Amino acid sequence: MSGHFFTFEGCDGSGKTTVMERVYEILTAEGIPAVKTREPGGVPIAEQIRKVILDNGNTAMDIRTEVLLFAASRRQHLVEKVLPALSEGKVVLSDRFVDSSLVYQGYARGAGIERVRNVNDYAIEGLWPEATYFLDCEPQICLARIHSDAGHEENRLDNETLQFHNRVYEGFRELVRLYPERVIPVDGRRTIEEEAQQIAADIKARLERSR
Amino acid sequence: MSGHFFTFEGCDGSGKTTVMERVYEILTAEGIPAVKTREPGGVPIAEQIRKVILDNGNTAMDIRTEVLLFAASRRQHLVEKVLPALSEGKVVLSDRFVDSSLVYQGYARGAGIERVRNVNDYAIEGLWPEATYFLDCEPQICLARIHSDAGHEENRLDNETLQFHNRVYEGFRELVRLYPERVIPVDGRRTIEEEAQQIAADIKARLERSR
Repeated sequence: MSGHFFTFEGCDGSGKTTVMERVYEILTAEGIPAVKTREPGGVPIAEQIRKVILDNGNTAMDIRTEVLLFAASRRQHLVEKVLPALSEGKVVLSDRFVDSSLVYQGYARGAGIERVRNVNDYAIEGLWPEATYFLDCEPQICLARIHSDAGHEENRLDNETLQFHNRVYEGFRELVRLYPERVIPVDGRRTIEEEAQQIAADIKARLERSR
Repeated sequence: MSGHFFTFEGCDGSGKTTVMERVYEILTAEGIPAVKTREPGGVPIAEQIRKVILDNGNTAMDIRTEVLLFAASRRQHLVEKVLPALSEGKVVLSDRFVDSSLVYQGYARGAGIERVRNVNDYAIEGLWPEATYFLDCEPQICLARIHSDAGHEENRLDNETLQFHNRVYEGFRELVRLYPERVIPVDGRRTIEEEAQQIAADIKARLERSR
């Protein structure tokens, strides 16, 4: 496994997707072979699983069922898309990964970070990211951005209150405390360019050190 | 939780389904409130998950994805069907449950009994059956019965060799060794009636003792 795996996390509307796109551009422009992805990442089995999770009709879904389904979808995306790219020595950037489950199901919905981590340990088989960039942006700002985005499609998991978004934000900050060596907070009140440059520099420094 | 939970396990063609039906008849005839089920048990979310697992097109499915999906389907069936019946004080009989995953994925496909158990521990949250009746019938006999059953629909998991069926059988015998206090082998070379009477007597003795 000669590649490098990095993930981008944060609340919806935190800017992580846009920042990751820009990081990808910066790396590729400098000749660093990179791949960008997000779950389910065009992997048909992972997409079928996501469809079950996000189905608006599935209101009876138990939280543990949801945790197991997200882990299953993650596993398949990892095996079919992330691992092959890492084997080719590429830098893989993923928009959300295991930490989203730790926060959304584990912390915000009360399933327990440790329990959700245990299930996901099985799914990812030790493949934790080298670094996880948490786009630290307050929930009110994130929510305002989401609602001004006309292309955003609503699904079952969107029907949540500001209170829930606050818990998600708290959850990410909890991860920074739990995994300080891996989860790196990035000040999300700056411009996309500033944030992307900071992250790209950090990634390049890590690649340099691993040579 | 005032009810009692029992499961029936064995190779396909071992007779477990027919025996369980007969046990159900015996119990109900004696006025014991019982419910019979099998995963996914008419629970829509569990059925949607099963559809993904059994889809003949999903040949790229990783074994860990499969383990997580079976656990997710099991969880939902448990929450929507088994737990409510147990809360009403009923005897719940299930055709297959967690042991099928331990054997099929854990033992026969090599995912590891302990690892598969760990994932399923999360899914069932401590709800292990009071007793699991393993219909002990040799693979050759089971296979012969399956192929003479015209109503049997083929799916992805059926495309297996006799060697695989032998491993499944070995796996169930391994469970008898691992969990002797719970997994009870039932000699499957006798008539359905003899087997059902033995199991019904065992269940009634257990209900008697728990009073």
